[in-house]
Amino acid sequence: MVDTRFSVSIQIMMTLAAHTDELYSSDALAKVLKTNATFIRKLVTHLVDAKLISSYRGKGGGIKLARDSKEICLKEIYHAATGEKQLISVHKKPITKACAVSCCIGDVLDEIVDGIEESTQRFLSGKTLHDLMIKVK
Amino acid sequence: MVDTRFSVSIQIMMTLAAHTDELYSSDALAKVLKTNATFIRKLVTHLVDAKLISSYRGKGGGIKLARDSKEICLKEIYHAATGEKQLISVHKKPITKACAVSCCIGDVLDEIVDGIEESTQRFLSGKTLHDLMIKVK
Repeated sequence: MVDTRFSVSIQIMMTLAAHTDELYSSDALAKVLKTNATFIRKLVTHLVDAKLISSYRGKGGGIKLARDSKEICLKEIYHAATGEKQLISVHKKPITKACAVSCCIGDVLDEIVDGIEESTQRFLSGKTLHDLMIKVK
Repeated sequence: MVDTRFSVSIQIMMTLAAHTDELYSSDALAKVLKTNATFIRKLVTHLVDAKLISSYRGKGGGIKLARDSKEICLKEIYHAATGEKQLISVHKKPITKACAVSCCIGDVLDEIVDGIEESTQRFLSGKTLHDLMIKVK
């Protein structure tokens, strides 16, 4: 993964999990995370779309977790944050027809990348937001 | 992983595995892979350092696999190609002391990244270069 969308989304979700009794604004989150507010708003939109966060409009509105932290697994946050983008980049080069390896390298690499993605997602499925919150003192 | 060092290294190793009866030059590899020769030479140096490739100097010299493809696992290629660089970037931001999540986010993210790296490496340990060569027609 090239950027930090996943790790910042984790921090957003943890910050909301630490304050379930109040509504947060994206600006307040940006202040606590010391991160650009536009970037935070974009990630929050993805998390709302994924139904991990509920958004309440109007004066006094804001966002909060849509579910208990025990019912949110990290795989869901990963998907919301990264969309379809995969962890590993593979090179796409024109094929050298005379070379049997060159002719099949695309399929071989796709299979490796799929395997890495699957094992990553299996790991993230086994962890909940609550598991992370246990470490917050 | 930001770049394509791993996938290009896989193609280098597969190309050598398809031609175990001859010595290759980095220039010949660059031509088949249609990739920059300097980049190939850099990756080849890492693969030689990792003892996955043997290099023979002088006229008529070149490189070949150091071992049978059944005895080379993808985890070794991954390590040679990427060094210590991890798959996922995490954000490093100054801590907001008043926020308990902000104070521990570094440790929490490190643990997630370690888990993803471990599951990736477990997957790559279970695959050999020979497993990939079976797909070459």
